[in-house]
Amino acid sequence: MKTDIEIANSVTPQPIEKIAEQLNISKEDLYLYGPYKAKLNLSLAENRPSKGKLILVTAINPTPAGEGKTTTTVGLGDALAKAGHRTVIALREPSLGPVFGIKGGATGGGYAQVIPMEDINLHFTGDMHAITAANNLLAAAIDNHIHQGNALGIDPRRIIWKRCLDMNDRALRKIVCSLGGPTNGMPREEGFDITVASEVMAILCLAKDLEDLKTRLGRIVVAENFSGDYVLAKDLEVQGAMAMLLKDALKPNLVQTLEHTPAIIHGGPFANIAHGCNSVTATKMALAFGDIAVTEAGFGADLGAEKFFDIKCRYAGLTPDAVVVVATVRALKYNGGLPKSELEAENLPALEKGLPNLLRHLDNIQNVYGLPAVVAINRFPTDTEAEINLIRKACERQGVEVALSEVWAKGSAGGAELAKAVLSLLQAPRDFRYAYQLEAPIEVKIRELVQKIYHGRDVTFSKTAQNAIAHLTAAGYAHLPICMAKTQYSFSDDATQLGAPEGFTVTVQDLHVSAGAGFIVVLCGNILTMPGLPKKPAANQMDIAADGTITGLF
Amino acid sequence: MKTDIEIANSVTPQPIEKIAEQLNISKEDLYLYGPYKAKLNLSLAENRPSKGKLILVTAINPTPAGEGKTTTTVGLGDALAKAGHRTVIALREPSLGPVFGIKGGATGGGYAQVIPMEDINLHFTGDMHAITAANNLLAAAIDNHIHQGNALGIDPRRIIWKRCLDMNDRALRKIVCSLGGPTNGMPREEGFDITVASEVMAILCLAKDLEDLKTRLGRIVVAENFSGDYVLAKDLEVQGAMAMLLKDALKPNLVQTLEHTPAIIHGGPFANIAHGCNSVTATKMALAFGDIAVTEAGFGADLGAEKFFDIKCRYAGLTPDAVVVVATVRALKYNGGLPKSELEAENLPALEKGLPNLLRHLDNIQNVYGLPAVVAINRFPTDTEAEINLIRKACERQGVEVALSEVWAKGSAGGAELAKAVLSLLQAPRDFRYAYQLEAPIEVKIRELVQKIYHGRDVTFSKTAQNAIAHLTAAGYAHLPICMAKTQYSFSDDATQLGAPEGFTVTVQDLHVSAGAGFIVVLCGNILTMPGLPKKPAANQMDIAADGTITGLF
Repeated sequence: MKTDIEIANSVTPQPIEKIAEQLNISKEDLYLYGPYKAKLNLSLAENRPSKGKLILVTAINPTPAGEGKTTTTVGLGDALAKAGHRTVIALREPSLGPVFGIKGGATGGGYAQVIPMEDINLHFTGDMHAITAANNLLAAAIDNHIHQGNALGIDPRRIIWKRCLDMNDRALRKIVCSLGGPTNGMPREEGFDITVASEVMAILCLAKDLEDLKTRLGRIVVAENFSGDYVLAKDLEVQGAMAMLLKDALKPNLVQTLEHTPAIIHGGPFANIAHGCNSVTATKMALAFGDIAVTEAGFGADLGAEKFFDIKCRYAGLTPDAVVVVATVRALKYNGGLPKSELEAENLPALEKGLPNLLRHLDNIQNVYGLPAVVAINRFPTDTEAEINLIRKACERQGVEVALSEVWAKGSAGGAELAKAVLSLLQAPRDFRYAYQLEAPIEVKIRELVQKIYHGRDVTFSKTAQNAIAHLTAAGYAHLPICMAKTQYSFSDDATQLGAPEGFTVTVQDLHVSAGAGFIVVLCGNILTMPGLPKKPAANQMDIAADGTITGLF
Repeated sequence: MKTDIEIANSVTPQPIEKIAEQLNISKEDLYLYGPYKAKLNLSLAENRPSKGKLILVTAINPTPAGEGKTTTTVGLGDALAKAGHRTVIALREPSLGPVFGIKGGATGGGYAQVIPMEDINLHFTGDMHAITAANNLLAAAIDNHIHQGNALGIDPRRIIWKRCLDMNDRALRKIVCSLGGPTNGMPREEGFDITVASEVMAILCLAKDLEDLKTRLGRIVVAENFSGDYVLAKDLEVQGAMAMLLKDALKPNLVQTLEHTPAIIHGGPFANIAHGCNSVTATKMALAFGDIAVTEAGFGADLGAEKFFDIKCRYAGLTPDAVVVVATVRALKYNGGLPKSELEAENLPALEKGLPNLLRHLDNIQNVYGLPAVVAINRFPTDTEAEINLIRKACERQGVEVALSEVWAKGSAGGAELAKAVLSLLQAPRDFRYAYQLEAPIEVKIRELVQKIYHGRDVTFSKTAQNAIAHLTAAGYAHLPICMAKTQYSFSDDATQLGAPEGFTVTVQDLHVSAGAGFIVVLCGNILTMPGLPKKPAANQMDIAADGTITGLF
């Protein structure tokens, strides 16, 4: 069997000008990064209505079995294009950390990939590095300000802003910096996040244009001063330099799939402490130049789709037209309590037990958000007819069609059934609405999400959380949308509660504001914002030959 | 008066394909980064002899008055091109740290600049970020190895490899990492260097090709194990992944001057703990495609030119044809003991006292390295005729011509006299040789540099240095060239000894090996490898308007 990179390299990409031509974007409007990648000027879509249909691909709660959300998104895009629709795929950018760790890249898999796979998974057009630089310029400015006299009275014990690196590096999670005497600054506790967890990433993904970007960067809350008031990035006068560093990163990147369907890959914030979707500019560009735009959100629908609707669509004024929920027979059985080693064999009782996870996500999409949905079963050779029929019947009872997807093995041909289902969904009625209103108090918004989306009984707020809510409300941030940071593996805040748990209480431990991005992060449990490398990092298998041939990248 | 960025933006660059055309490089051989930047495939020069004449631009010891080495290099290149010679300029890449600090960018100044100035000074083609990523992947692999059982027995107290960031950030000079309990690794002392100080940068600048790059990366000494033996990067099996991260960074970058002379800008290692020159691949490319290649080295000639000759030229098999030593009347007066506030007024005694600094550098170039030299006086409006005549006469006594350069104010027109002098120098006899032989013991090589180049009396080795020499010799590194790390402000190891000090002793405090780059770093004093930001960082003045216009970059 061919590896992903072998498949990717077996296809000759079309020059990116050709791909742009499909969308009536002329050569002059492309900023090339080699022959197969280009940045698109924001002005391109400025006076163009976002007239395309917007399709969101989301999934059941993730499991170690893997669901194939990106692969399905790419394959669906190819299948829609094959069916004669001008389709643009909008994806998130891979992060180098996971590339070298366990997870690998983020360009899809098999015959449903975006290319050039190597470049996209490595430095791509440098967006991630620009975000790292902007994030760390702000961090350096904070410590420098303190070192140079601390006119703003920043409390070194209450600095919120962290440094970042695009690397899985547990050694940097918690450090003490500025050691070595007075010339090295004021010693304090510090830590690094992985770059995708930086608020700068979330800002880039929500900013409309350069001006909006700069305003948002200036609004970032970096610390408290000795009086307990927030210190903002603009107090340090670096938002201009940060925006300058991000001037190119703000522009969406155009590439193509293995079947030459246009794909815009741009941004990719964490899906727990941030909103987990690609950039607003990318999605709008896809809608301006495609008749259909296919995009994805992070993790399962409880986190990813929720934030896509309640944060991204709300800020960007987007109205989704249809939702695809990706599931696998294996992952549903895992949700039904089966261990990873037993997922291959048919097991209808386990499947039946896991199915409510899928059904609850569907219910939310249909009844909370008022959108039509279809289920995509990312098919594995071990799936049995009986298992698939079981899923089909359960979904049909909820009025949702199930389409089998074999895009990993067959590309667009394997996505024909799904494309057909999606196209018919575009005729279905919809009445898009948000899960909560911004005007409600913070606690109310959180409770609405827990009860409506997670189907939990109630919410408990720790003392720390209560104080944080009071502080954030007093500081005027209560009107912002909510960004839930909880485990992605369960509807609840307990990663072991698979399937569709009921009667649970979610405990909010702390809150902080991402004032630049424009949301309140609600921490339910300990969220790791800097991954570590595994015992055998993927990096150890990677190599590049004298002729430039890369192996071990996946 | 126009700012550098205003001048840079007042010129419409030619499409980079046009610039390449001047060198008979076809469009197909360019890897574009937008319309005005391109990477050149290494294979382009593979079977082409490096037939051009190689001119090195170096300088007297740097002073706060500024000498204008890069500006002179760019202006000389333009003037040679104007005189009808196919000229290629080879420069170092700017680092973001100084851009946001005090020093600013590194694209020349006034009417002698390389463009697009903004892009080159910001992320350029991402080389610096790729180096950061490769450096930090190795660092993460070290701590991960220890965390995952430490099969190699790495002594956490004896880890040599540091993390890096392309930022002026004193808070990261000395840290304690891996705090927070067992899941975050083994706590230890750590520190960050600025990216240009990473050995990966030095390696990139000396590597011949991808294979050589990978071999050198594998050779990096990262730590000692509990038995005191060196642990190498290849023991951690990440040299393949590191080389993969650097696959594009290894390719030289083609841009242009304000007058459309081709400039290859690539690499830029520190000039004290590393060798301070642009990449071998860039210089060879310039020699392969230009009849004349003009390049520069770091700091003053005692550090920069010495390493250019003894490290870079030796490794690359390059033979320089002529040397330009840049000086200013102001800087010579400063070297003569005049404070910075008094440099404007004519002061012949101070100038006379400072002149030996210049004369000693000339003597070294002529008599140690056997190369013809010319002095370029980077002219300021405050310079008097009497001062310039004094310099002229002193140099003439040493057989060296003095040419006035006004390239900052006038571009190539201001470099005509210098170009003429350089062209006549190319007819002069030369007998290029190195300052020391590789076979000599480490102490002998150091003593030769101190006595021949610095004109010091002797060398003292600390106990630590003596032990290091024994360890390095036993480990088989004694045959490597020497990379002196001392203050750039003086021939001696005391920054306050300006002019041409005599009778001094240089104290070697420690040595370490950059086995990947292929040299032994000899530490004479405390060398800062992570700068800090000043009280008013340049970043605070920088801005980008809604239309993308950048201000405050210099």
